[in-house]
Amino acid sequence: MGEHTVSSFDQELDEIDRLIVQMGTLAQRMVGDSTKALLSADERLAARVISEDATLDAFQRDLDARVITLIGKRQPMAQDLRAAVGALRMAADLERIGDLAKNVAKRVNAVGRTPVSETLSNSIEAMSRVVQDAVSDVLDHYTAHNAEALQALRVDDEKIDIRYTAIFRELLTYMMEDPRVITTCTHLLFCAKNLERIGDHVTNIAENAYYVTTGLQLPAKRPKRDETMPAASVS
Amino acid sequence: MGEHTVSSFDQELDEIDRLIVQMGTLAQRMVGDSTKALLSADERLAARVISEDATLDAFQRDLDARVITLIGKRQPMAQDLRAAVGALRMAADLERIGDLAKNVAKRVNAVGRTPVSETLSNSIEAMSRVVQDAVSDVLDHYTAHNAEALQALRVDDEKIDIRYTAIFRELLTYMMEDPRVITTCTHLLFCAKNLERIGDHVTNIAENAYYVTTGLQLPAKRPKRDETMPAASVS
Repeated sequence: MGEHTVSSFDQELDEIDRLIVQMGTLAQRMVGDSTKALLSADERLAARVISEDATLDAFQRDLDARVITLIGKRQPMAQDLRAAVGALRMAADLERIGDLAKNVAKRVNAVGRTPVSETLSNSIEAMSRVVQDAVSDVLDHYTAHNAEALQALRVDDEKIDIRYTAIFRELLTYMMEDPRVITTCTHLLFCAKNLERIGDHVTNIAENAYYVTTGLQLPAKRPKRDETMPAASVS
Repeated sequence: MGEHTVSSFDQELDEIDRLIVQMGTLAQRMVGDSTKALLSADERLAARVISEDATLDAFQRDLDARVITLIGKRQPMAQDLRAAVGALRMAADLERIGDLAKNVAKRVNAVGRTPVSETLSNSIEAMSRVVQDAVSDVLDHYTAHNAEALQALRVDDEKIDIRYTAIFRELLTYMMEDPRVITTCTHLLFCAKNLERIGDHVTNIAENAYYVTTGLQLPAKRPKRDETMPAASVS
């Protein structure tokens, strides 16, 4: 393979990486805005997040088409093929993050202005901020080819899981105390679960980015702490 | 490209398709078994589902490695490349179905023998059966290259969504009537949501299989009926 070909391939891959970063930036903003819309009953902001999901989907289709064309045209081997397939996977995870943010936004109307305690509101906001940071960190570490930092992101996901568990318990308590808030709390429960799942997608992205960067797989099973299930013994 | 090469490619792709069918069969059984375990508080069956998820993950890693090797070695164009990339995506969705079944299985212990009404139990079982049928149908239609039937699967997903909405409302009612069942009902809510999400993954698989079969995309946005959100006005 001539040097010219290699360099064109790299150029096209750089383009694709730029698309991934754009997707990530949009996905991160959607997470932030959907949380803000949820906690301030801002239906206009929620509507914007919902419409942005279509933009994110279009980004993914564009990226997919480019990657598939690139593989077909350049017929990359080993490391390059890994990078191309990795890009497809990362884009799929970013698209799912957008879906989950959209799902939070769609619940804004259902939750409305039902008063939730300030503690709960703060917990959800803080969890969302950790999740948003994880989204931006994974993209930074990917573009910096920082394998060590990518691996360390698993620890952040554990912190997200712990926050989710706390919110889960808090919501159960509210529901038991006042049946009138059950519907609202159920929607908030799904919102918190969505944030937790966004953390899982960040972990997937980190694993893929690690593989693209190093050629090595992180061990398939990361320690997964889901404390909400034993928590059932509470009732 | 010589005929020999083409035919080797097809043979390897057939191998990969067989792996997809194996994954699908396992995923479908996991959905059935996890539901059964949930509704009969069968912790041994739940444990089996949880351990089977590792098998499904291993299948996916095997499939991924084969597809990537195949692309690198055979350097397929157009239709063949589409089939190879489509296989990667379908495997990813099947792996997610296994994850969701495992998540149901992990809730078996938390739900335990808390009596749920026979109506509710029947609703969940019926929903699970529709979901299992969708998983097996999408694989049948894929291996039969039946584009029309693949497209029709979207209608099945709508039926699944309607069942989910009914179960969601039923669970809210129980929680409002008796705060002692709130924790259990919350876990059942997540189980029902998991089944609904499995339906979404079947739709993804159908869309990918349609693309592989016809080279055409089904329109990106399918009508998505989620009635649980307006339902919030109930409270």
